[in-house]
Formats: sequence, C-alpha cells, structure tokens
Amino acid sequence: MTPPAALDVDTIGNGVPKPLTVDAIPAVRAQSAKMPGGVAPSTSSDMFKSPACYTKPKAKRWDHILSAEAKSRKSSTLKGAAKYLGTPGLISLGGGLPSPEYFPFEELSVKVPTPPGFSPGTTRLTAGKHDIREGKSLYDLEVALNYGQSSGAPQLLRFVTEHTELIHNPPYSDWQCCLTPGSTYAWDTALRLLCEKGDYLLMEEYTFSSAQETVLPLGVKVAHVKMDEQGLLPESLDDVMSNWDEASRGARKPSVLYTIPTGQNPTGATQSFERRKEVYKVAQKHDIYIVEDEPYYFLQMQPYTGANSEPVPPPATHDEFLKSLIPSYLSIDVDGRVLRMESFSKVLSPGARTGWVVASEQIIERVYRNTEVSAQHPSGFSQLIFFKLLDEQWGHSGYLDWLINLRMQYTSRRDIIVHACEDHLPREVTSWIAPAAGMFHWIEIDWKKHPELTAGKTHDAIEEALFTAAVDSGVLISRGSWFKADGRTEDRMFFRATFAAASEENIIEAIRRFGAAVRAEFKLP
Amino acid sequence: MTPPAALDVDTIGNGVPKPLTVDAIPAVRAQSAKMPGGVAPSTSSDMFKSPACYTKPKAKRWDHILSAEAKSRKSSTLKGAAKYLGTPGLISLGGGLPSPEYFPFEELSVKVPTPPGFSPGTTRLTAGKHDIREGKSLYDLEVALNYGQSSGAPQLLRFVTEHTELIHNPPYSDWQCCLTPGSTYAWDTALRLLCEKGDYLLMEEYTFSSAQETVLPLGVKVAHVKMDEQGLLPESLDDVMSNWDEASRGARKPSVLYTIPTGQNPTGATQSFERRKEVYKVAQKHDIYIVEDEPYYFLQMQPYTGANSEPVPPPATHDEFLKSLIPSYLSIDVDGRVLRMESFSKVLSPGARTGWVVASEQIIERVYRNTEVSAQHPSGFSQLIFFKLLDEQWGHSGYLDWLINLRMQYTSRRDIIVHACEDHLPREVTSWIAPAAGMFHWIEIDWKKHPELTAGKTHDAIEEALFTAAVDSGVLISRGSWFKADGRTEDRMFFRATFAAASEENIIEAIRRFGAAVRAEFKLP
Repeated sequence: MTPPAALDVDTIGNGVPKPLTVDAIPAVRAQSAKMPGGVAPSTSSDMFKSPACYTKPKAKRWDHILSAEAKSRKSSTLKGAAKYLGTPGLISLGGGLPSPEYFPFEELSVKVPTPPGFSPGTTRLTAGKHDIREGKSLYDLEVALNYGQSSGAPQLLRFVTEHTELIHNPPYSDWQCCLTPGSTYAWDTALRLLCEKGDYLLMEEYTFSSAQETVLPLGVKVAHVKMDEQGLLPESLDDVMSNWDEASRGARKPSVLYTIPTGQNPTGATQSFERRKEVYKVAQKHDIYIVEDEPYYFLQMQPYTGANSEPVPPPATHDEFLKSLIPSYLSIDVDGRVLRMESFSKVLSPGARTGWVVASEQIIERVYRNTEVSAQHPSGFSQLIFFKLLDEQWGHSGYLDWLINLRMQYTSRRDIIVHACEDHLPREVTSWIAPAAGMFHWIEIDWKKHPELTAGKTHDAIEEALFTAAVDSGVLISRGSWFKADGRTEDRMFFRATFAAASEENIIEAIRRFGAAVRAEFKLP
Repeated sequence: MTPPAALDVDTIGNGVPKPLTVDAIPAVRAQSAKMPGGVAPSTSSDMFKSPACYTKPKAKRWDHILSAEAKSRKSSTLKGAAKYLGTPGLISLGGGLPSPEYFPFEELSVKVPTPPGFSPGTTRLTAGKHDIREGKSLYDLEVALNYGQSSGAPQLLRFVTEHTELIHNPPYSDWQCCLTPGSTYAWDTALRLLCEKGDYLLMEEYTFSSAQETVLPLGVKVAHVKMDEQGLLPESLDDVMSNWDEASRGARKPSVLYTIPTGQNPTGATQSFERRKEVYKVAQKHDIYIVEDEPYYFLQMQPYTGANSEPVPPPATHDEFLKSLIPSYLSIDVDGRVLRMESFSKVLSPGARTGWVVASEQIIERVYRNTEVSAQHPSGFSQLIFFKLLDEQWGHSGYLDWLINLRMQYTSRRDIIVHACEDHLPREVTSWIAPAAGMFHWIEIDWKKHPELTAGKTHDAIEEALFTAAVDSGVLISRGSWFKADGRTEDRMFFRATFAAASEENIIEAIRRFGAAVRAEFKLP
C-alpha cells in the first residue's frame, strides 16, 4: 500500500505535525485511496492514515524477539495469486470463493440509538446485498459474507485507523491496525509471535486470570512485577530484569511485558501518565517489548468526589474529553515497541468478537500471517454492523459522544459501589481506593486481624472462608488469589467486585451482604 | 450435562436403535432439557442428542496422542466460579460481563429466502434485545451480544447436534459438537491438540495449500499419501505407516491423518463409501487419528451424464437425498477416532466465520479449553442470525430443501465447466474426470508432449509457461504444484479450475481462453 500522494502536512511550528482532529478527517478521506469495493481486497492502515504520519521516523525492527513459528510463516500461496485479479477483463477460475447468489441473506438491518441522547432504537440502519454495486454504500452483504483478508474489511479498518490516530497519534510512521476476532484471540496470537516454549513473560503481580491461563500451556512461565495503587512498578520491573539469573530461572531474560494500564483487571489500578513514561523508559533500558491490553481505556471515569459531594459534570467538549484520557503506551511509543490490543467488548458488545491491534508494520504483517491460517478475520456480520453504526451513522463525533455517555454511566456505577462500601463494610478490616477506570473494585482484607489467626488459620483458609460465607449470604465476589500471576499465596488479601452489570439496588445489597459476611467471619459487632 | 431421562428408544430389531429422522426431532426436543436462557450458559450436545445415542458404546481414549500443550490446559478459573450463578437469590459481582443496556443494538433483522422456491428476500426474521425474557424467542440480542461459552450458544448448538445425528448418526455414544469460528480456525486448533513440534502429519499428496501452510510453521512436517481418481489410497497409507523408518525420517510414526473426503481440494476427487471403509481399517490397524475436513459434503452433485443427455432430476424426497450422500468417516467411526470439521462456508456464508466440529467428548472438551483462551466462540451476530434462519425459520426440513437446491445449482455449474472442457480443450494433451462433488475441476496436462521437452524444458518451466499464457489470455487458473503436500515436483501436471463463482458465460469463455493458451503453448493446430 502506498501512502496518500499529497503530503501537505499541517504543522504546529518547528515542523511538528498537528494531531488529527475529528474535523480534519473528511479532508484526509478526500485525498486517500478509493475504498476497495471487491471481495477480499488487500488493504492496510496506510490507505487511511493522514499524511502527517509519514513525516515521523520508522519503528525499530523486532527480528530478535520474533518466535521461530512467527518467522517461518509465509504468505498464503492462493492469496498471492490474488494479485492477478486486477488485470482488466481477467476471468478468475482461481480462488475457491462461493458465489454470493447462494448466501441466503438479502438484507440486514439493526435498530440503534443515536446521539446526543442515545434513546434506544430510534434509528434503523440497513445493509443490502448489492449496495456497493448499486452505489448505496461502501460495504454490503455480498462482500461482508464472503471470505476476507486477515487485515479485516477496509471499510471498518478505515474507521479504527482514524480513531487510533485521533486518540493515540503514535509517534512513529509505520504503525498499522489489524482487525481481530477479539482481544482474547489477539493475546493468543501475540504469544505465538513473541514467545518460545521455556521463556518467561513479565506480568503484573495480580493479573487477568484468563490472560495467564493462555500463557502457561504454551510452556511459557510468568515472572511477576510488583504493583502499587497505580499498578505496575517500574522499579520492580527494572529489578526483575537487572537481577535476572539465567541459571536459577532456567531461562533467558524475558523480552515481553503484558500489562493492563487502565482500570487493571483485577486491581482496578490505573497507571498515571508519569508512571507509563517511567515504565517505558525501563522497557527501553532492557529492550522489553510491551503488549498493552486496553479493554477499559474508555471506561476512564470522572474523579471520585466522595459520598456527600456533587458529582463532577461530564466533559463539555470532545476536546475536553480527549484531554481527560491518560495517554496510552502507544502514544509515547517512539520505538514501535508496543502492541496495543483494542477491544469493542466493553464499549459496544463482547459477543461480536471484534476488536483490533495496533503495532509496527513488521509485527502486524506477522499477525496477518498467523491469522490467515487460523481465525481468518472477524465475522462479516460483526464488521458490517459495526461499520454501519460507527462509520455511516455515528461517525467519529457520535462515537465520542457514546464514549462520554459510557464514561458517565460507569462513573455513576463506581460511585454507587464505593458509597455502598463506605456504608456497609467494616472499616476495621477492609480498605479500598475508588477506581479511576474499568469495572472492578478491589477490596483489601486485613486478614491478620482474623480471630483464628493465632489458632493457625492460614491466609488461604481465611480467603476461602470469606468467599464461602459471601456465597452463603447470597453474593458472588472473586477471590484475589485467582488472579495471582505466579499462583503464590501472599502477604495481603483482596476480593474483586464488579460493578459493570448488576443494578444499583443489587450492587448496594450485595455489598451489604458481603459486609455482614466479613463482620461475622471476623466476629466484629 | 445429563442425557434426557426417558430412554425409550425405538429400535429396528435386534436392539439396534432407529436413526433419527426429521419427523422425530420434535419428540426428542420435547423430552430434552430446557433451553438455557441466561448469559454464557454451560451447554453440550448431550442436552440435545436423542436417547438412542446413549445405547451405543463409548469412544476410545486418546490420551496417547494429545499434545503436551493440550494436556496442560485447565478450565478457566473465572468460568469455574460460574457454577454458583444458579444459586437462588445470589447477586453476582463476580464475572466482568458488561451490562446489556450498553449494547447499542435494540433489534436486528434479516431478509431471507424461504422454501420450497427460495425466491430471494421474501421473509424478514427479527431478533429483539429481550426476546427471551419476553417469551418471544429462545435467543436474543441481550444474550448473543454478551460473552458466551466456547461450546457456542446452546440455541445454535442444538440445531447442529440434531443435524449431525440426522446426517451421520455416529456409531458411538459420547460424541459432541462444538461451534467454531470456521474450519480454518478449527484446523489450527486440531493441530495444537494433536501434534508436537517435530512430528509428521499424513496428508493427501495434493492438498488444500492453506491447510498445509497452517501445519509447517508449527514445526510439523508432512508425509504424503498417494491418490487416485477416488482420492486417498488406503494401500499407500498402509505402506507409509508400515515402512516408517524413524531414523531416516528423524521423527516418530505419524498418528494423525488430514483428509478432505468429498470434492477434495484441489483434485475434486470424492472417496467412495468402500474407499472410506478401507481407509478407516488402515487407520485402525496403525492407530491413526483422522481429521476429516468436509466443507464440500453438501456439494455432492447429481451424476454426470455427458453433453447430450438429459440431466438427472433432483432427489424427489428428503429420504432419497439423504440416501444419495456418501457416508462420512464420522458415520462409520466405531472407535471415536475422527474429528469432523463442519463448515457453513460453502452452504450459507464463509464471511460469518461459523462452523462446528464433531468428535468424542474427550477431544471436544480439549477443544473447549483451547478455544476459551483464544477465539472464545463465533460471533454472536453470526450465531443469532444462523439460529433465526435454520432453527426458527427453515427448520431441518427447510434446510434440507436448501441443500438439495444447492446440489442442483452446483450440478449445473459442474456440467457447464465439463461441457466447456469437452468443447474447448485440446484432447491431445488434456484430460479430466467430471467431479462428483465440490467446486473444483482438476485438469491434467500431458506435459511430456510439450514441443520443447527435448530441448530440456522442465516440468516447472512448462507449468509456469502455461499459467502465464493463461493469465495473458485473460484467465486465472491455479497451478497444481501449489497444492503439492510435500512441495516436490512430480511426474504429472495439473491445473485447478473453480466453477463456484463465475457466471455461465464466463466459465465457458475462460475455458475457451485456457484451451487456446494450451494449444498455443503446445503448438497444436
């Protein structure tokens, strides 16, 4: 793919290009390559990035960290033959694509809410089978329901590329996006690209249990990095790497860090901008490649103001909203050492199994090669519906409105659970910090105050007893030990409560029940 | 999952249970477990199989062929906690599921053709957000758009389970289905379950190039099995296994065979029932596990009757149609040594990325464990739309009508390409067999008649020259060498032509152009 021809870059002085804005996107589109209209077109983010991107330096090369499996992947032979398809007048008896006349779907439509109020189901979006040929849309059922490339459909790829530039503006030129069938899949792919059997991987001390369960069966072990209330500690990362002993570990130094920077699962911790810069510096020092898993990035909330104070009003403008977001690792990634996993699961729907990754061209090309002989691409139904909603209906401006709306909803849910904790948990043995992002509230238990401690009751037994007592009282809450990156019992004890799904009354009632269970277990009045 | 309680099995004498019929499905459903209505319910085919299944013996165990990766996978910790969710009155702050109120999709609808005529877009199927709660449907957007289990949604799993029993009636009791995000993904999963790095895998001499490109980067090598016009040769399979020399191969005997029994890609060959039984016997002799990849099973066609004779009329009844289908490996699999990969790609839509696999419980359980930390499950949009179409609208009877309709369409396309070959290819140097199934026509070139052979022109150079001459004449056709399982140049030469997608006129014109190119290259009049 070639970048747009006219490189007339707006600058903000000293030759630094101006970041992309929502208002500038139509102009970028106007000078971009034409949207491909055929089946399984080859595509890349380079078709859709603004000219300013190409004024930046290129990413570093990562040959030294790619796995043998990743290095040995070749382009698909049959997909290679697709290069002839552009020949005028050529008839293809080449690829085994079924004829769209046998797809039994003539039309698809969804009812969606629209900005600014987002009252439910006010607008119907419709996709026909031959909308592209008929000039009605850039995307249709005929194309969406056939095979596609592992980049994902260009129609949706354009939107996520623009969104990525708008939000993160990566500081190197050759970044690319690739649509994925969800971040769980993307993480499995990343491990296959970046790790060999026997390697260690760096993870936060407490981490998403499923992310860890993906790692271990590959024969990869986990080295944990300590955390504080802002999450990952750069000093600990530096310490693990500086004092790595190959002999005692039985493995080479790790070269990959997995982190959830925003609303971390399970701790709810959010790394400040300063923290991220410090971690990035340590990554540069030890040449660590960073995988940032960011499903909760847009669940950053308004500041917590306490039970009896006024809530902070929503961001007044898109600009104010964008400025309120903590910059990502991607946005400070001068080396191209970050693979960012983006998800629509927490902001549109997890069941659609559609997200995307962002990384340097070299890494994304390897993602394509892995994906084309595995999941291939996200569902065409999902891609088409998301395109209709995000690109044709909401646009970038409407999507930002939706994200602001969601921010306020989660702020309200967070406030409810924190107030409920203030009202119902025994402060003698419980403590917490109001989360700034995500869907998790992390409650510490001062287990050393347990009355049976002197009788020898262990950390594990007390955690188990509290969990069982909670279930018996009618509340399911996750045990902190489920999320321990190296599975070891530890000095501290936590429970994770989700405030994403239950109703207001149920959140309050559940915390009340948990408080009563803790009180009973600790024999508190 | 427990099987249905009342085991009142119809028999056909000697205690052999009667196979399931379309008409009997309502009665099976009536005594099955209630369809789960919640988010991410645990489910399995055992909820939906007929009582007759449980009168059969169990599958063998496959511990000895499972990979270290497969064996080391454990159940998801967080999904394990879901067992408490059935507790009455329990409030969950456990799992990180987003609230459906934030899914911006209130209603989804598709226009579909209906049997018997299947005229396009006559009927609109609609799914609401809360149809389950409102008693309107067994499946809705609220559930489909949230996370699900790696088995796939029970609503669609029921349909494919019944369909599997109806068509294949596996001869052991503990078979299970698992929905997949497509067969390409299922194949990657199967390799991770069944092969270790350094192993050899058995494949047909010519095979789907993408299937082979999935294998090699895993460090797995390919041992090829010879073929004739019926595909895989059992004698060759026996020969490869009986004469396996670990020292010269540098690897243990293979334990897995990958085969495309019906309308094989690229050769178009279809294994007869006799052939399948012979291959299965060899598999038993050498304890080979069989992966049957069957995307073209329902592209079995009416017999080819030649250019000037009447076409064979369509099957008059469902029963006649079912009897016309060559039995699958699954249907003769007394040991449970077959993993069958099923696809909707060629019969509904490839872009939906939704298919399923069938195998013994032990293998399917391992598929779940792999999938839950990778693709998770097919898109909820795809699952919901397929459920609406297949279960609520067409039913099994309407789906069989659709498959018969497709059979006649492909028969007509096959007849067109074979007639075109009869009219336009030079018989002096080309030959073919009319395919009985699939979407591929395999044309042999008698390359040893090439005029420059005596001047030293090689097999590869002639194949290349023919390919280029074809492209220059305006037709893209695939080179046979692209599909060679072990990549070696061979004694014979083939080209693969697809008749699935081009129009009737274009198929004829493409073959005319190819014929002219061959004539010119071979200096024929």
